[in-house]
Amino acid sequence: MARLTGGDPSLLRRINSAAVLHALRGAQTPTLTELVRTTGLSRPTVEGVVEGLMESGLVVEVPAAPGDVRKQGRPARRFRFRAEAGHLLGMEIGAHRIRVLLADLSGRVLDRHAVAVDEAMAADDRLERARVTVADLLRRTGVARSTLWAVGVGSPGIVEHDGTVRLGTALPGWTGLPLGLRLRRSFRCPVLVENDANAAVLAEHWTGAAIGSDDVVYVMAGLSPGAGSLIGGRLHRGFGGAAGEIGALHLLGREAAPEILLSTTGTPLPPLDEPAMSEVFALAARGDAEASAAVRRFVRRLVHDVAALALALDPELVVLGGWSPSFEVVLEPLREELARYCLRPPKVAMSALGAEAVATGALRLALDHVEERLYAVEETAAQ
Amino acid sequence: MARLTGGDPSLLRRINSAAVLHALRGAQTPTLTELVRTTGLSRPTVEGVVEGLMESGLVVEVPAAPGDVRKQGRPARRFRFRAEAGHLLGMEIGAHRIRVLLADLSGRVLDRHAVAVDEAMAADDRLERARVTVADLLRRTGVARSTLWAVGVGSPGIVEHDGTVRLGTALPGWTGLPLGLRLRRSFRCPVLVENDANAAVLAEHWTGAAIGSDDVVYVMAGLSPGAGSLIGGRLHRGFGGAAGEIGALHLLGREAAPEILLSTTGTPLPPLDEPAMSEVFALAARGDAEASAAVRRFVRRLVHDVAALALALDPELVVLGGWSPSFEVVLEPLREELARYCLRPPKVAMSALGAEAVATGALRLALDHVEERLYAVEETAAQ
Repeated sequence: MARLTGGDPSLLRRINSAAVLHALRGAQTPTLTELVRTTGLSRPTVEGVVEGLMESGLVVEVPAAPGDVRKQGRPARRFRFRAEAGHLLGMEIGAHRIRVLLADLSGRVLDRHAVAVDEAMAADDRLERARVTVADLLRRTGVARSTLWAVGVGSPGIVEHDGTVRLGTALPGWTGLPLGLRLRRSFRCPVLVENDANAAVLAEHWTGAAIGSDDVVYVMAGLSPGAGSLIGGRLHRGFGGAAGEIGALHLLGREAAPEILLSTTGTPLPPLDEPAMSEVFALAARGDAEASAAVRRFVRRLVHDVAALALALDPELVVLGGWSPSFEVVLEPLREELARYCLRPPKVAMSALGAEAVATGALRLALDHVEERLYAVEETAAQ
Repeated sequence: MARLTGGDPSLLRRINSAAVLHALRGAQTPTLTELVRTTGLSRPTVEGVVEGLMESGLVVEVPAAPGDVRKQGRPARRFRFRAEAGHLLGMEIGAHRIRVLLADLSGRVLDRHAVAVDEAMAADDRLERARVTVADLLRRTGVARSTLWAVGVGSPGIVEHDGTVRLGTALPGWTGLPLGLRLRRSFRCPVLVENDANAAVLAEHWTGAAIGSDDVVYVMAGLSPGAGSLIGGRLHRGFGGAAGEIGALHLLGREAAPEILLSTTGTPLPPLDEPAMSEVFALAARGDAEASAAVRRFVRRLVHDVAALALALDPELVVLGGWSPSFEVVLEPLREELARYCLRPPKVAMSALGAEAVATGALRLALDHVEERLYAVEETAAQ
């Protein structure tokens, strides 16, 4: 990121500032001596940078720790990064739910708010509901909108770099919607939009079931299946941003949709009706024979989707995200089937973040953006 | 690659040598003045490097061109890279064929040799046949084995970094075979082993249907289907080297194997019998109704494989490699089906290299290795 150009003193200041900030965020309440040791900078340089960061409100001096007494009797000064100096939002705008996480600049979630929405809701109404959800959350927590540094958004569909939904069949009016642009009207900070499954895999890698795994496929094993992949720790979006859009896979084998597979009556369940389907899973978990048969049919289809992804990508780990709390019943059958079909079967784990995976990944996007800014050495125009 | 460490004169010589060599290989027969201009080095430096390269046999002076007369009447000296200073082999060891390409150090193919082998052949016999094929080719062309700089090999299965076949069900005795180690006994130069479909995608990108496309899936649409992928111009091997091993996909939908799908009699064709299947394609091309129906069944299965790869990876381009010269009949139906199932359908093209794709990719591996050595700035231990 740093483009080193001769002896530009302001550039050097920015490099040193980034180094000290990085050290501060990586420690609890370091002393100047500790910061000098971590950064390799001189004590006067670190002092100067810390003073500057205190003036800008990003760093604050904290009371000395009990053992902090130097020989002369004056305790060493301690400092901490003021994560509360700004805030981040991570938002999911989905078919059935709008979910918002509010976090500080360290990514720690301070509060959360989710509202149910109808899958048939028009795009304008859905966006309005998103705005109201954010406003409610900010009001409730007493956080000023002006303290928001970045907003991340996860939503279904193929999302362009600028936040426009190129193609999104899951939500009415979503295709062609300039989602980023529309949301930016409500915020004075950058708004980053990402496909929901892509956001979810970032979340699981950050703080969920995929910590430490850099080759991961997250399968949104719901009614409108999708997947997000990390390859070598980086999001794989594909040439046109459509990687993992596996919704059509089950059509290929002339296999049935989940609402048919999961029916216990012969009549299909209402499409996209997650509560109805969750009920089938719950019944199966309680041993109901019809429901168990329905779940077995569903697993066969799911295996198909997951196997296609696993065979194409060969990930280390597949993380199963889903809409049902009883979804764990599919885990073992899925492992068994994958072991049969994959030359090198991946590990399979349930999502550790459940219904918050997409919003958490959206929050990670916002945090990534802020960290880039905090550590940016070159001066960049605000977005 | 260059690790710049202070004023090491031999390091500087190597950097300069790499720069001049690069300029020489990128041009036809440049003059010293042209090399000075291309490299940005001083004339005495370029002269010194060229002398050294001439001594090592990698560069030779060529007769002046007709217009090459300077004011003083003495023509400028011209030089060229001696691609004939060494040789490379690209080899496919497959189920039905062993195919070897012999090339110079620029990757230009000088001669080729292929022999049919039986799919049931034991591993030792297959390796022996490969050795004999190479020996025949070298004898025929009068190329000394000692002039080989690198050998690339493409073969079915999951291939480890060291050239061991971790898993290879297509060839008898292939699983666990230390293929690289075994072949290295026959050569005093490095031997690089890669999965066959991976080699093929490198080949199409280098000199075939995928020139200029960095996000490519090559589908080996034969009897033992496999795929190789480039993502951002780099081979995607997957976490365990099994990416694209889609052989089991058709089992998932309980769909039939090609030998059943392509049968026109109700009795399955002999498995892996490519001539028998080619015959079905040829009949279909001539309008035979039974054969056409068989090909339609086959295309449905192929669409399934390709769609799985395309949906998971979202490549710019899918290259179809196959074993039948009449294979082109599947191209249009495949495009149509992919357009139905993919949110963003990829382009689809036939392999431009046909039966030589794997061997050509193996040659590219050998060439990559040699180029790394030619341009290596750090001294590296010979493999």
